[in-house]
Amino acid sequence: MYDLRGETVHFDVEHNRLLALDQTELPQKTVVLALRTREELFEAIQSLRVRGAPAIGVAAAIGLAVLANESCQTEIPAFCAEVRENAAYLKAARPTAVNLPWALGEMEKVLSNGAKTVEALKAALTSRALALHAADVEVCRKIGENGAPLLKNCRAVLTHCNAGRLAAVKYGTALAPIYTAKEQGHNIAVYADETRPLLQGARLTAYELHEAGIDVTVLCDSAASYVLGSGKVQAVLVGCDRVAANGDTANKVGTSGVAVLAQHYGIPFYVCAPFSTIDFSCASGAEIPIELRDDREIGTLWYQKKMLPDGVCALNPAFDVTSADLITAFITEKGVIEPKALAQYR
Amino acid sequence: MYDLRGETVHFDVEHNRLLALDQTELPQKTVVLALRTREELFEAIQSLRVRGAPAIGVAAAIGLAVLANESCQTEIPAFCAEVRENAAYLKAARPTAVNLPWALGEMEKVLSNGAKTVEALKAALTSRALALHAADVEVCRKIGENGAPLLKNCRAVLTHCNAGRLAAVKYGTALAPIYTAKEQGHNIAVYADETRPLLQGARLTAYELHEAGIDVTVLCDSAASYVLGSGKVQAVLVGCDRVAANGDTANKVGTSGVAVLAQHYGIPFYVCAPFSTIDFSCASGAEIPIELRDDREIGTLWYQKKMLPDGVCALNPAFDVTSADLITAFITEKGVIEPKALAQYR
Repeated sequence: MYDLRGETVHFDVEHNRLLALDQTELPQKTVVLALRTREELFEAIQSLRVRGAPAIGVAAAIGLAVLANESCQTEIPAFCAEVRENAAYLKAARPTAVNLPWALGEMEKVLSNGAKTVEALKAALTSRALALHAADVEVCRKIGENGAPLLKNCRAVLTHCNAGRLAAVKYGTALAPIYTAKEQGHNIAVYADETRPLLQGARLTAYELHEAGIDVTVLCDSAASYVLGSGKVQAVLVGCDRVAANGDTANKVGTSGVAVLAQHYGIPFYVCAPFSTIDFSCASGAEIPIELRDDREIGTLWYQKKMLPDGVCALNPAFDVTSADLITAFITEKGVIEPKALAQYR
Repeated sequence: MYDLRGETVHFDVEHNRLLALDQTELPQKTVVLALRTREELFEAIQSLRVRGAPAIGVAAAIGLAVLANESCQTEIPAFCAEVRENAAYLKAARPTAVNLPWALGEMEKVLSNGAKTVEALKAALTSRALALHAADVEVCRKIGENGAPLLKNCRAVLTHCNAGRLAAVKYGTALAPIYTAKEQGHNIAVYADETRPLLQGARLTAYELHEAGIDVTVLCDSAASYVLGSGKVQAVLVGCDRVAANGDTANKVGTSGVAVLAQHYGIPFYVCAPFSTIDFSCASGAEIPIELRDDREIGTLWYQKKMLPDGVCALNPAFDVTSADLITAFITEKGVIEPKALAQYR
């Protein structure tokens, strides 16, 4: 078994490969993938072996460096063209999370750093990928620190999908404040929406919290209203895949529904967002592309058992857009920010 | 195969047995059960082989008549005691739907009809069960007639769980207006929440609508916000298990969430309710008992595959309460009634 060193995605520089936990095998099996080719990288992201907006961004950056290091090009222009072509290819793996194009864009900036040799460019790309990897850890740690004080009167929170350590390199976004609170001696219980169709809540959030000794209860997504209306939780924490300039937020399908419910029941709804997820070029949620995935994900369940009658269609958007006016605040590495105040950070 | 004559539950008087479609086998297999003993009747209701509030009520009434016809008691007091004991036993099968105690209560009224012989009481119980069965068909037909005009500008509706013909003897409640509209030449498409954990929407609503030639699309429950916010549907139709005097309505878990969303998106939310479902002895939703079911229904999915990590708990309420102020109107066999106007029918 490859050594991930407690991380979800890891740059094995020595062997020039991306190591990644295969999240489609959890919770039954812990399988670590060693990825080297662009087809392997694309497939791992597209099929959710590597998932979670921050983890996808870091994985793609490392992948681009791995591919660059394998390049046979000896001239700088041809080398740069190849790197850009690989970046464009990887960007197409999933459309909604902005971290993917953002991280690859950060990598492409290296190409214009004035390096004189291909070898220098390769070294610079590797070191930028390592820096993005390190930055993700630090950003999530800060989100935890900024979020924990908001939860000081919380006995429990509700979360949707998985925006925990499995969705990032370490710590995670939505679950970071829970981990930080625990370090500070405050044990907060978590109600986890199972998150159909691919059950990231049941399989991943439950797995990582249970492993960390945090009390977790899984519920069907439809039971969120029951839980929020019952006084069981005092806050909602979710991650995000892309935040528009006006604060509209794309996240796993179902998030907008939880936000409407939270407002209805008077419970604060927090989006835990690294700045890499904020897309200021996107004016509002209407401009965020929503991925529609294969409807067999609904019809067959995770275990490939047939669940729908023949000929019946299923609608399978992978995300939805939560309107800014439903979001109490963004918990970011720069502090807790109300949607209206976001523009100040532009 | 026993002949159900196009119904979901049927009183086979000749052989003194309840015939019922086993809904746990759909959509893969069409299995008809012949039930005679009280243990069989209890198990069929408790494990959702017979499900849907109206169908449960009728099935229990027929079951009580079947058991009465088998009675060896020769004295009226002992016979009546046995019938009441059987009624109490069957009432305990599920706590939330009021149709179960209501229908059994209607049956028990027969015991004080002044009959002079046990045989006369048996005949009266059989004929009351047949009358309740016939009344359900008629009530649902009227709900369809009353509801269809409300949908005249609808291209599509959203529904949660199954309150179609499979939930009643015929026609159903929430889907009755769709069937009526179709008879009148107006084809309305249906978006069906899959309805975790037992997938009544994916398995049953999709099955019966598809069989009836009605366009149906299944979605994960969490995608309801996406669908309601997208302009795809112009109304929400749901059934109910118990309506309190103030209009608060218990129905499949998730219904209250859909109602909050419908209000948020400005879409009318209709509860299709036979009067047998209205419990005037219950002042508000707070008094309605909510069934908590085995959490293995969430952890193993329908096909008994393990879906949760070892040691993780799941919360599994089978219903929730929709506050009256979220309900646009009740569509009943006596007309379309706003929650506030319900008291006039007391």
